Amino acid sequence: MNTYGSAFKVTTFGESHGEGIGCVCDGVPAGLKIDEDFIQAQLNRRKPGQNSYSTPRAESDTVQILSGTYEGFSTGAPIALFIANQNQKSKDYDSLKELFRPGHADFSYFYKYGIKDHRGGGRSSARESAARVAAGAIAKLFLNEFNIEVLSGLSGVGELKAHELDFSYAQKSEIYALDKTSESSWKELIQKVRSEHDSIGGEVLLKAKNLPVGLGEPLYDKLDGRIGKEFLALNAVKAVEIGEGVKASCLKGSANNDQMDKNGFLSNHSGGVLGGISTGQDLDVKVHFKPTPSIFQDQKTLNLNKQETICSLRGRHDPCVAIRGSVVCEMMLSAMLMDFMLLNMRSSMENIKKIYM
Amino acid sequence: MNTYGSAFKVTTFGESHGEGIGCVCDGVPAGLKIDEDFIQAQLNRRKPGQNSYSTPRAESDTVQILSGTYEGFSTGAPIALFIANQNQKSKDYDSLKELFRPGHADFSYFYKYGIKDHRGGGRSSARESAARVAAGAIAKLFLNEFNIEVLSGLSGVGELKAHELDFSYAQKSEIYALDKTSESSWKELIQKVRSEHDSIGGEVLLKAKNLPVGLGEPLYDKLDGRIGKEFLALNAVKAVEIGEGVKASCLKGSANNDQMDKNGFLSNHSGGVLGGISTGQDLDVKVHFKPTPSIFQDQKTLNLNKQETICSLRGRHDPCVAIRGSVVCEMMLSAMLMDFMLLNMRSSMENIKKIYM
Amino acid sequence: MNTYGSAFKVTTFGESHGEGIGCVCDGVPAGLKIDEDFIQAQLNRRKPGQNSYSTPRAESDTVQILSGTYEGFSTGAPIALFIANQNQKSKDYDSLKELFRPGHADFSYFYKYGIKDHRGGGRSSARESAARVAAGAIAKLFLNEFNIEVLSGLSGVGELKAHELDFSYAQKSEIYALDKTSESSWKELIQKVRSEHDSIGGEVLLKAKNLPVGLGEPLYDKLDGRIGKEFLALNAVKAVEIGEGVKASCLKGSANNDQMDKNGFLSNHSGGVLGGISTGQDLDVKVHFKPTPSIFQDQKTLNLNKQETICSLRGRHDPCVAIRGSVVCEMMLSAMLMDFMLLNMRSSMENIKKIYM
Amino acid sequence: MNTYGSAFKVTTFGESHGEGIGCVCDGVPAGLKIDEDFIQAQLNRRKPGQNSYSTPRAESDTVQILSGTYEGFSTGAPIALFIANQNQKSKDYDSLKELFRPGHADFSYFYKYGIKDHRGGGRSSARESAARVAAGAIAKLFLNEFNIEVLSGLSGVGELKAHELDFSYAQKSEIYALDKTSESSWKELIQKVRSEHDSIGGEVLLKAKNLPVGLGEPLYDKLDGRIGKEFLALNAVKAVEIGEGVKASCLKGSANNDQMDKNGFLSNHSGGVLGGISTGQDLDVKVHFKPTPSIFQDQKTLNLNKQETICSLRGRHDPCVAIRGSVVCEMMLSAMLMDFMLLNMRSSMENIKKIYM
Repeated sequence: MNTYGSAFKVTTFGESHGEGIGCVCDGVPAGLKIDEDFIQAQLNRRKPGQNSYSTPRAESDTVQILSGTYEGFSTGAPIALFIANQNQKSKDYDSLKELFRPGHADFSYFYKYGIKDHRGGGRSSARESAARVAAGAIAKLFLNEFNIEVLSGLSGVGELKAHELDFSYAQKSEIYALDKTSESSWKELIQKVRSEHDSIGGEVLLKAKNLPVGLGEPLYDKLDGRIGKEFLALNAVKAVEIGEGVKASCLKGSANNDQMDKNGFLSNHSGGVLGGISTGQDLDVKVHFKPTPSIFQDQKTLNLNKQETICSLRGRHDPCVAIRGSVVCEMMLSAMLMDFMLLNMRSSMENIKKIYM
Repeated sequence: MNTYGSAFKVTTFGESHGEGIGCVCDGVPAGLKIDEDFIQAQLNRRKPGQNSYSTPRAESDTVQILSGTYEGFSTGAPIALFIANQNQKSKDYDSLKELFRPGHADFSYFYKYGIKDHRGGGRSSARESAARVAAGAIAKLFLNEFNIEVLSGLSGVGELKAHELDFSYAQKSEIYALDKTSESSWKELIQKVRSEHDSIGGEVLLKAKNLPVGLGEPLYDKLDGRIGKEFLALNAVKAVEIGEGVKASCLKGSANNDQMDKNGFLSNHSGGVLGGISTGQDLDVKVHFKPTPSIFQDQKTLNLNKQETICSLRGRHDPCVAIRGSVVCEMMLSAMLMDFMLLNMRSSMENIKKIYM
Repeated sequence: MNTYGSAFKVTTFGESHGEGIGCVCDGVPAGLKIDEDFIQAQLNRRKPGQNSYSTPRAESDTVQILSGTYEGFSTGAPIALFIANQNQKSKDYDSLKELFRPGHADFSYFYKYGIKDHRGGGRSSARESAARVAAGAIAKLFLNEFNIEVLSGLSGVGELKAHELDFSYAQKSEIYALDKTSESSWKELIQKVRSEHDSIGGEVLLKAKNLPVGLGEPLYDKLDGRIGKEFLALNAVKAVEIGEGVKASCLKGSANNDQMDKNGFLSNHSGGVLGGISTGQDLDVKVHFKPTPSIFQDQKTLNLNKQETICSLRGRHDPCVAIRGSVVCEMMLSAMLMDFMLLNMRSSMENIKKIYM
Repeated sequence: MNTYGSAFKVTTFGESHGEGIGCVCDGVPAGLKIDEDFIQAQLNRRKPGQNSYSTPRAESDTVQILSGTYEGFSTGAPIALFIANQNQKSKDYDSLKELFRPGHADFSYFYKYGIKDHRGGGRSSARESAARVAAGAIAKLFLNEFNIEVLSGLSGVGELKAHELDFSYAQKSEIYALDKTSESSWKELIQKVRSEHDSIGGEVLLKAKNLPVGLGEPLYDKLDGRIGKEFLALNAVKAVEIGEGVKASCLKGSANNDQMDKNGFLSNHSGGVLGGISTGQDLDVKVHFKPTPSIFQDQKTLNLNKQETICSLRGRHDPCVAIRGSVVCEMMLSAMLMDFMLLNMRSSMENIKKIYM
């Protein structure tokens, strides 16, 4: 329920307005250097309040390592990470105590659990993704040892889509834009919707480079299946594509198959996955984020007694969650890849003999 | 690895050209009427060789119940189902023994496992989905007891998309077309690509009606996350959308939020899921299938020794896998929904007291 | 529920009086030679009807491999094994339809599931252990590749305990006796209780030799914890001891600690496990089986309507289940050890680099 | 690895000499009153330094709730509990940096992970059990709602065994003695071994009363199997018995079977479990603890370079770990029973209809 991963297993906890949020990372092999500054740096990439394109809610998101390391290295024991909450203006939410915010989880949580934690969504808050970033940062430290790169960036805002994709530019861009030439129009659009008290959807690309062949466990823990699971389970994500994605349903086989010659694959329509297993080509994923449901316009809704009322949100929210969402996706993908590397070790007798003989 | 589901857990086994394929369904509550004819009827919907729009490979796909029932009812013990293989022309595949078929799992399986079972893809064959249909049929029997309907159909072939959606028509259509008016043009397109020795992608819609509120386990076994996992892990699926899906990334929050009045939700952009939990609205999912990689044109590839060669497939394949894929999706969704119903029972003290007090 | 193991995962199904019993072995690494004769030979060691010390119910217990191998080797896909039932005299059980047999699972199954499959206990029958033997035989094939031996035998019948332990003698003994000198008195005792229409408990020893250090996953999947789980979950087992076992609670630390010198440990009170992880010493386990509850004396019981009645069993049963139970324990331990070898591979960065660098 | 339980799932983390220890309790149903004082009271029963029969290491063991509650009730979100470390005299352990303490996990951890955290055993420290007590206390709050009692106490120290069993006396006894008349002789023995710089084993009894019939998930998550797993995985436990336990292997079936009349079972040799499922009778478990390996006598051992050396422990240790171990067992059993109550809900269609119809 609150755990993801199989060999590298992450359990998260915490709410937006309680003591804080955290995670327990289990399955980190002993002997990995755990660079706390690196973890903090990844959290900083996600943290809000950095510019006018995200929520003005400034949180320091300082990570604390509670267990699992000794003299800077992992010991094989679970690594618990904790990020204390700060700057919680629960007051902002008091008027929401009794109603369901449109597009939010309030409604379904209330009917499932019979309880409404109105303070910023409680467990369903996007703030929980900070715990995922912390865990993903450990995975990135692991992947770095094997030269595997996981990259991310924004490829579209609303109907404006990228023309070029430059993952190194995205790292410098305030809005993690993959397309330098589109960036200013995207920023304008975001400011415009914000001034209209509205929000806007966005599209994120992920790329993993230098993967070994063989990642993914058929048939029900395939690499692409897991990507589907973890990205569609991310707040606000409504669609996930691998390789050609949606377009694959329009193509003929002769156009979609990746032929090979002695230099390897002649194309990468598959997005780096065949039969649910990595091919060693770049892994290409596209993720679609809906617009933040927190908008500052009057909306019709019901209160807990099923009476009609108006929802008038105040507070501080991202006009385009896809921006910070891109970092979360990158970290989630890193965690998955580390997990699959651990799982894949035992796929053949040849591998096993390398350890025990 | 070869198990899906959590409370209703299905383990499958088998290859396209071995003894047969099967599954073990664990977690079926005692006292469910197990109607063997109904299970067979679902398998018949998926089975190949029924008309000229699927592979001419005729298989009887007769299901056998090996365990778990007593006098026609489930006992709480695992229900094992077996479908013996027939009509296996392994010879068709002999020329493939030494090469990687473009677009197929041969390449990644070989490098992961060091073994190449050339006979129709072995474990990675789409034939495995018959086991999923058998398991899903049991879930449908369960859902029927609660009046929950899961429906499916084809909403597009190549670039031709549906204009209307009629799930009851799809049940009668030879190609499970949701759109009666598009059906003949879709059939023509399929026959055309077949005559060109090619294949074509397709798009499938799923709808579940009459769901209880509360299905889905936050945060990492959400309803939409699980849908992402199980559909993207299906052979040939390259994209999955929930509700507005891809389009959500283009919308503003004011257009995408579902407001409510005393009659309930005023729209269903969310596709029936908020915060990963069912809202009780219709659950709407779209699945994109790539074109079958098995085409009958010469393609460049490598052999197992990494030398260049030409792949010239012969044999019997579906020109558009999305057609039969729609049935598989419907059964997978049924299995998930049963699973989530079982999991959701324990979400509140109120529920638990209904059982133990 | 019906699955055990983590990396080497076995799902079993079947009842004593249905079509048969079977298992799906998942996680067998590709490239292991699957010797069908060896698997059959292990089943033969467990099968009933071989002499007068077990039930006269003769079953052939012929194993059939349904999937997962190609040209005699594992492919990495699940290996399904099936053993068809034969010689089912359901009639023997007809008089039991309406009552709870003392000491049997009838009572608890009926109140849990609301269903009574009276034919030989259905799923709770000891016959299910044949599936465990089949799966364990695959594990033994795996362990053989690494020279790991798992041995078993009977160390006591009723109050008669072994004076000497000879695991190679046990392999030849009709009753798997570890003590040649006690064997005849044990046999007499068994015949005596049988002639009294009674049954008798017994004690089994297990030993695993040549284990690598490091097997066991702290803290909740420790080697000794897993042994406790899988043996206490075996029909008729009521106690499990590791190393000094029960006696350890009587000892002082100075007597129980295993000191070391340059030749290694000076004693093995721990039974080969420290902190839940194998030390490389012999793994020593003792398992206590209760007497078969199926005895041929009149016993007071209730029928399904909670009315008093007399249970008068007829049929064919083992007078001392510990005998055949020893083979089942040996196979279960083999499966666990294989599982832990697979799990342990990823415990350190050093190991992981052996695979990926 | 660091998670136990299935529906009520507990993940623990932390070391004896790091920041602290903690746990994440997942699967607590929404609406359970979370009484922080009660949780603290259970921790106080386990905490060291309370009298001369446990280690003089005084720790406050103050629990902090980090997440998962709202206005004093569980929300369905994970409940994280943290206990900060205090009074860590790592210096005590400096001389141990380079050697393996006999009877401790140092040896096996070092060879598994390649790392030696010498400070009090790190992750393998018995201190970790405080996290289990905190989690178990939540389970006790749950069980209280259904009037289920879980009791524990000491039934033997070394070779001195209890003559009478009084679970209510045990709650008042400084050493949790079940036998008031034996208590003083047990105390004397403990003081004697302590004065000899030695330690002593002990025996613990557990009893659960008022259980519903039906707890336990056949075949591989049986109630008795799980008890075996979780108790044998507890530090220092070397044997576990259910009902007649070891003695069952000496009995005849006629003596061991529990017959029934209209008032219910006429005896409880089974210990409350048949076929791995609770019968509703008292659940009776006996657990054998070895003597603490930390003794203050010179012992032969090796250092990390495999050279002979002498281990001369200093520090503060329990002379008889079974005493405080009894509380840990009680809490672990409570957690299991809660877990099985949640799992059992879905065993029959009848139950499921109580929720959804």
